[in-house]
Amino acid sequence: MLITFEGIDGAGKSTQVTKLKRHLQERGREVLALREPGGTPVAEEIRELLLESRNDITPVGELLLFAASRAELVQHVIRPALESGADVILDRFFDSTTAYQGYGRGLDLAMLAEINRIASCGLVPDMTFYLDLTPEDALMRKFSEKSLPLAFESGELDRMENSGLAFYQRVREGYHRLGGENPERIVMIDALLSPEEIHRKIVASIENFAVSGQTAGT
Amino acid sequence: MLITFEGIDGAGKSTQVTKLKRHLQERGREVLALREPGGTPVAEEIRELLLESRNDITPVGELLLFAASRAELVQHVIRPALESGADVILDRFFDSTTAYQGYGRGLDLAMLAEINRIASCGLVPDMTFYLDLTPEDALMRKFSEKSLPLAFESGELDRMENSGLAFYQRVREGYHRLGGENPERIVMIDALLSPEEIHRKIVASIENFAVSGQTAGT
Repeated sequence: MLITFEGIDGAGKSTQVTKLKRHLQERGREVLALREPGGTPVAEEIRELLLESRNDITPVGELLLFAASRAELVQHVIRPALESGADVILDRFFDSTTAYQGYGRGLDLAMLAEINRIASCGLVPDMTFYLDLTPEDALMRKFSEKSLPLAFESGELDRMENSGLAFYQRVREGYHRLGGENPERIVMIDALLSPEEIHRKIVASIENFAVSGQTAGT
Repeated sequence: MLITFEGIDGAGKSTQVTKLKRHLQERGREVLALREPGGTPVAEEIRELLLESRNDITPVGELLLFAASRAELVQHVIRPALESGADVILDRFFDSTTAYQGYGRGLDLAMLAEINRIASCGLVPDMTFYLDLTPEDALMRKFSEKSLPLAFESGELDRMENSGLAFYQRVREGYHRLGGENPERIVMIDALLSPEEIHRKIVASIENFAVSGQTAGT
């Protein structure tokens, strides 16, 4: 299975990726957990380029670099892993492109759909868990989790402040639209639930999918 | 005006770019001559990445990196130059993508058309000069122009030998198709004519375009 996690920074994706990976491994599954951009030598170089040129690059240039990194990861890593029978868990995939570049930055959605299709080489997740959080709650989490200097150092506060709350509000609305348009694939979960509760919902959805081939809904 | 040059390596594009640039400058025009990929800090890094990862990268990954470099060049350099009233001469533009990745490597032509449109941000050359040469003649030129060790060192022979003559034959057929589909823009010129004769044809086409807004045909 290809399982992706989506949501704004601070929604708890990486915690859930770790929990789900362990759960599936305990069931005897081979599991690969990956994050974008990166994951192959070329994709890691693209990641560095994206990080260091954040202020110089045009939105379309950025989009195409993300897409190039994704194409490399899909063809060199994800597809071979799936074909070998492993499960793959991704911390972000093409829904992030639609939510951030499309709804957040206003790039044309039809263009993004085309780029997403090309970059993912037609690969679509079996299940996507969207952890829903308001930007205000995300900021609160950042402040409480880390000391302020640390949050500044890591660049996380910078990123959120540069883009502004309105941007993240649009991203969140984008995720809600995506959830509405893809109910067979995207499971929306309240990110304010406890990590254990979220994990239980995710496991239940996956078991339901395994039995019926359908997502469990929210 | 945006003027592009196309053709397989060895067709004499760079010679004609230099001649045309000088000609237009002598007419008092501001002229910018550029080659892809590259031309901005981010695009130059993409160029390096493409050169160093030539053997590792997937065709779609390569396509998207070229596209990212093009998007940067168009938005940061070409469009501002055109808007300031300068002429821009490009040694290769999106027709190369169609000819090499599409006809040469067999990537889907509809996908390429979409990527070309996105990467060039809708910009289409006013005139394109395609210098037509058979792959066999291109190889002959390479051998006669340079000593064999030098040609090997520069990687040019490697490139042609790795891809094979059949590949360049398909690229050439692709250029012929493009010429047939875009007669209002693409001027086909026999690359075996003398550089001076080719230059005269190019200048005549441009003067005709300036007068009538139409290309002069072959």
